[in-house]
Amino acid sequence: MAQFLDENFLLKNETAKHLFFHVAKDLPIFDYHCHLSPQAIAEDTPFDDIARMWLEGDHYKWRIMRANGEPESLCGGKGPWDEKFVAYARSLLRAAGNPLLQWSHLELQRIFGIHEVLTPQNALQIREKANRLLATERVSPRSLLMKFNVKVLCTTDDPVDDLHWHRAIAKEQKEGSAFQTKVLPAFRPDKVLNTLDIAAWNRYVDELGGVAGIAVDSYASLLEALAKRHDYFHSMGCRLSDHALLVPPYVVSSDTELDTIVKKGRKGTPLVSVDQEKLATALLSQLARLNAKEGWTMQLHIAALRNVNPRLFRTFGPDVGGDSTSDAPIIAPLASFLGALEREGNLPRTILYSLDPSKHNPLAALAASFAGTSPDAAVSQMAGKVQLGAAWWFNDQKEGIERHLREYAGVGLVGAWVGMLTDSRSFMSFPRHEYFRRLLCNAVGEWVEAGELPDDPLYTDRLVRGICWENAANYFGML
Amino acid sequence: MAQFLDENFLLKNETAKHLFFHVAKDLPIFDYHCHLSPQAIAEDTPFDDIARMWLEGDHYKWRIMRANGEPESLCGGKGPWDEKFVAYARSLLRAAGNPLLQWSHLELQRIFGIHEVLTPQNALQIREKANRLLATERVSPRSLLMKFNVKVLCTTDDPVDDLHWHRAIAKEQKEGSAFQTKVLPAFRPDKVLNTLDIAAWNRYVDELGGVAGIAVDSYASLLEALAKRHDYFHSMGCRLSDHALLVPPYVVSSDTELDTIVKKGRKGTPLVSVDQEKLATALLSQLARLNAKEGWTMQLHIAALRNVNPRLFRTFGPDVGGDSTSDAPIIAPLASFLGALEREGNLPRTILYSLDPSKHNPLAALAASFAGTSPDAAVSQMAGKVQLGAAWWFNDQKEGIERHLREYAGVGLVGAWVGMLTDSRSFMSFPRHEYFRRLLCNAVGEWVEAGELPDDPLYTDRLVRGICWENAANYFGML
Amino acid sequence: MAQFLDENFLLKNETAKHLFFHVAKDLPIFDYHCHLSPQAIAEDTPFDDIARMWLEGDHYKWRIMRANGEPESLCGGKGPWDEKFVAYARSLLRAAGNPLLQWSHLELQRIFGIHEVLTPQNALQIREKANRLLATERVSPRSLLMKFNVKVLCTTDDPVDDLHWHRAIAKEQKEGSAFQTKVLPAFRPDKVLNTLDIAAWNRYVDELGGVAGIAVDSYASLLEALAKRHDYFHSMGCRLSDHALLVPPYVVSSDTELDTIVKKGRKGTPLVSVDQEKLATALLSQLARLNAKEGWTMQLHIAALRNVNPRLFRTFGPDVGGDSTSDAPIIAPLASFLGALEREGNLPRTILYSLDPSKHNPLAALAASFAGTSPDAAVSQMAGKVQLGAAWWFNDQKEGIERHLREYAGVGLVGAWVGMLTDSRSFMSFPRHEYFRRLLCNAVGEWVEAGELPDDPLYTDRLVRGICWENAANYFGML
Repeated sequence: MAQFLDENFLLKNETAKHLFFHVAKDLPIFDYHCHLSPQAIAEDTPFDDIARMWLEGDHYKWRIMRANGEPESLCGGKGPWDEKFVAYARSLLRAAGNPLLQWSHLELQRIFGIHEVLTPQNALQIREKANRLLATERVSPRSLLMKFNVKVLCTTDDPVDDLHWHRAIAKEQKEGSAFQTKVLPAFRPDKVLNTLDIAAWNRYVDELGGVAGIAVDSYASLLEALAKRHDYFHSMGCRLSDHALLVPPYVVSSDTELDTIVKKGRKGTPLVSVDQEKLATALLSQLARLNAKEGWTMQLHIAALRNVNPRLFRTFGPDVGGDSTSDAPIIAPLASFLGALEREGNLPRTILYSLDPSKHNPLAALAASFAGTSPDAAVSQMAGKVQLGAAWWFNDQKEGIERHLREYAGVGLVGAWVGMLTDSRSFMSFPRHEYFRRLLCNAVGEWVEAGELPDDPLYTDRLVRGICWENAANYFGML
Repeated sequence: MAQFLDENFLLKNETAKHLFFHVAKDLPIFDYHCHLSPQAIAEDTPFDDIARMWLEGDHYKWRIMRANGEPESLCGGKGPWDEKFVAYARSLLRAAGNPLLQWSHLELQRIFGIHEVLTPQNALQIREKANRLLATERVSPRSLLMKFNVKVLCTTDDPVDDLHWHRAIAKEQKEGSAFQTKVLPAFRPDKVLNTLDIAAWNRYVDELGGVAGIAVDSYASLLEALAKRHDYFHSMGCRLSDHALLVPPYVVSSDTELDTIVKKGRKGTPLVSVDQEKLATALLSQLARLNAKEGWTMQLHIAALRNVNPRLFRTFGPDVGGDSTSDAPIIAPLASFLGALEREGNLPRTILYSLDPSKHNPLAALAASFAGTSPDAAVSQMAGKVQLGAAWWFNDQKEGIERHLREYAGVGLVGAWVGMLTDSRSFMSFPRHEYFRRLLCNAVGEWVEAGELPDDPLYTDRLVRGICWENAANYFGML
Repeated sequence: MAQFLDENFLLKNETAKHLFFHVAKDLPIFDYHCHLSPQAIAEDTPFDDIARMWLEGDHYKWRIMRANGEPESLCGGKGPWDEKFVAYARSLLRAAGNPLLQWSHLELQRIFGIHEVLTPQNALQIREKANRLLATERVSPRSLLMKFNVKVLCTTDDPVDDLHWHRAIAKEQKEGSAFQTKVLPAFRPDKVLNTLDIAAWNRYVDELGGVAGIAVDSYASLLEALAKRHDYFHSMGCRLSDHALLVPPYVVSSDTELDTIVKKGRKGTPLVSVDQEKLATALLSQLARLNAKEGWTMQLHIAALRNVNPRLFRTFGPDVGGDSTSDAPIIAPLASFLGALEREGNLPRTILYSLDPSKHNPLAALAASFAGTSPDAAVSQMAGKVQLGAAWWFNDQKEGIERHLREYAGVGLVGAWVGMLTDSRSFMSFPRHEYFRRLLCNAVGEWVEAGELPDDPLYTDRLVRGICWENAANYFGML
């Protein structure tokens, strides 16, 4: 029987151990999608309390605490940190099979050198022990990024952002800072696509026009403003856009019609549903064209149904644990969207994520239909041009990752995959890459030991190295 | 190699065996959802024929017999019991991987002490052997409930039911009967929500008004009649409502509009689809409010597509094996429904089931968004206020239970779950709780032995005890 | 550790080995659905190049090559065969978990006696070695069918086909040819159901009317033409129809209305969407009635979303690797369609496939609702009258097959299943039956060794024999 989280954690056979310890473990991390704060990286304020590091703003943890019946004051609320810490430990007792149990203990081990099992009984001693370490050794955003060998990190940024902090970090790095993790922005223009609340959209478009120096009063000027910001992000090293889509929009319309829609919207007139979808289709297509032209990758994050709990939203706002998964069909409009871009030779590198894991198999099949590069395309030849994205959010756990990996491999070419990301708001979450790499090595090891994959480094070591680091390094054009 | 159904059945590691034999095995059963007949419990007529016990009314068994090409006379029809028994044994030969094979043999072992493997060749001898036991030892509804240590059992009852048999049982128990299983009603008002056949609906509403003593001629009086029955059920110990929904309804309307709809319906005028959905939304919401107010739990059983085979329905009526699973999207309307109740502070404890297992992951994510208890809510603080229900009906089998458990655990807090139920019409089906407990202990054992869960009773024994008994005991407010 | 693809490949326990080597291995093959060319069988031209055998027309392979970043000239294009062969070997290095890796090596072993692991380095030597064999031993369509013991093979044919090659083969066989594989047509009338492009439909209906000798100018004459072709196919031994449905159509209409629709269509007027669906519903129902009457089996292949990549379609046409999976709901219309036929006593034997594996569980439940045979039905009593089809296309891989098998078994009666098919365009693909049989035997072996299935040949050997051969032999009425 294995000890909890021992050195061979998740590695159930000898080939897996070899692959993890000799191939995967020391590869750098390419965290191409996260929600870390560039300001926090620039300021690099050291941490002083594990309770705040864990429980301030981490809605993953709040969800299981709520499910454990903890009062809201200890979840999203303003309760005392010691009570919150104990409440979290209490909730973990019921969290068998949930990644938080393992992630938290991995963080205790890797960051704090604490190998005890957390319980409500020892929680306060463990907090004290961890905080003593924080008081004696400098643990900060940058120290964690260096400790975990993060070579590239892409934040998630609004087109209106001036990327002040990215610029500050880059400047320091140019001047020889010891901190050399590439911190690049990613372009996330969700707000410009969302015309459901026309007043909010107008406020946003005003802001966008402002930073772009363009009076947005037509479809053409809206495109121009977006293109300007795309250019600006490109000049700051951005090579990645990111889009949250409940269902991929696909209703085609003419430029004239789109111009009418934009003008109507700019007057504050609410748009009917089909006009909302027409504009979203057109803008997303235009952004895809910009991406194709500039060699960017487009990430489509599909099927997150956000803020379903109005009480939580009213109390705390978005991103507080009130999100869920849509089970609406997505393939037909997505296929049309990708097809239209491919037809005109403007399909960029694209990564398709679904929060609904039952879509992984269909998405893998769809991605493979667009994986090839046309001779006339604006992007160069590459492996996995359109590909399935990692097991995302609620699926980022052992069962979810393993099933995703098997489904990806069975339907597509898993060896061309750019691998894992953290999608995290916490600087402590890099052990998730270790977690993923162990699962990957274990899956490959199982294939080899079962005689299903040749026991040949060309088929094994290279596969692991590719998925952990090399594919991303080659694919994104950021290095 | 293990023997078929030996004592370590489904327990593949030492931790699993420990957990099952020392923690789970002897815990009482809280069967919070079944279709057992309270009349049968009250009358307690002893059984005399295993063939009838197995094959009279059990449409699970009829389905595999039909699939085996057995004539309908031996399935739902009136063929002789010996031929039916042999036909069932013949069908089992092809039922590898189907729970009926294992359930039937568990029943032979646990109830009849018969450890042979059933075949068409020995079927008649086994029937004889079993029936000899029935002739010598009294085996009756109550004896089985006591044998399997069923402490609480919730039947499924129509609001118009006078709960005569529940009352009779309770009276006997008050007077010191040896039979002390709590037999409580559950409130299943499906018929009042279903206005597709307006004549049938009117007949039902007449009946409802009759037992409630209210002339139902308006939306308000319909609500009043329902509230009266809800009160009555509450006075009889009911703490649970149950709702079969193909897709959760969610179309909001005003009370005025609802009043018009009810009045139109009461005149016998067929309702258009959207009016049907408006009324269903309103009634379900109102029932939820009653549940929240009275501290009841609301069960939503989603996605059963019933009576799809018109030949079977015409011949035998409902519940004869002609049911199937809907794959229509359910999350968006369900999220809106729960959200609206949460907004007004009236979301009751709720258990979400889907017959389509690909919805388990999204439902677990949705449930976790509503798992917390708002300070102003009418229900008290508790773990898992909104939660995913057990692997239901066609998913109540090894593969379905294991997958459900892993998905629940990966996305939510499985330790707060109220666990398994039988959903059965047969008094012999309690070994299904043993079956589930073995699978649960095995899963927990595998986590522990793989180093994925601490080998600490706080994390293991308590988890198992919670899911098998304690969570239900705490959650439902029936004890 | 097992060697790659050794003799116990996929057989992980002793019972599995026994079942495979003593029961499954030498059973004949009943390949009831494939896309092999009857002309190729009739002409029987020997093969001379493994590169062409593998890479000419095999869009499964093109997909992973494209995903590996290989230029299109080496995939669907006209690049040199040696470069294509090396490019394929290069792509396999990244194909862990994909069936192509294992299928290709099985083909090397079984057909060419080559046991090396293919790499880009040795690819040209392996090609040379294989081609030497082709130069010395006659390897041809017929020799492969005989080598793999294929007893029955159903091709896929258009109703307008004159079945010239089937006739030629049958004639030779009657005259005592050594080649005695039954080569039967299957009736695939997709084009007559598809009125989206009304001009294409008219061209097709003209052709259909032509071969049927009927002027199609009404709904009645269209039915008559189809019935004539159905008769003709029947006379040629056909007992199987096959239908590709994105979503099963189900909109009922009257014959008068259908006549109007057909007449409108025959004038070249485009049909609105609902009229297209009405006609498709009516024609599919009518074909089902013909099938029921003649004792044919109806295959419904649901949810393939074809030709999503317009660049590939424009360059190469259909069936070139640009296909994907629809995730649209299918159960409600399918249940209505089957129900309507059952109501009138005209439901034929039916096999339900979905390309979306999340539909396997609901489809298995639906199939079981129609598995029984009504006394008044035009088809005789049989096991599994309506059943779930095999893991199809993108799901025809280890993970897909195992999951399909477990889901089928858990929800339905897997022992009545007619088992695997190749669905292939390649004469080399028969090792896929071996692949499937190994997985089947392994699953049964695991059940037995875990004590979940009796270790009794009545429960094991017979199950395996049934699924591999006997069920199909009994079910299709072709022997």
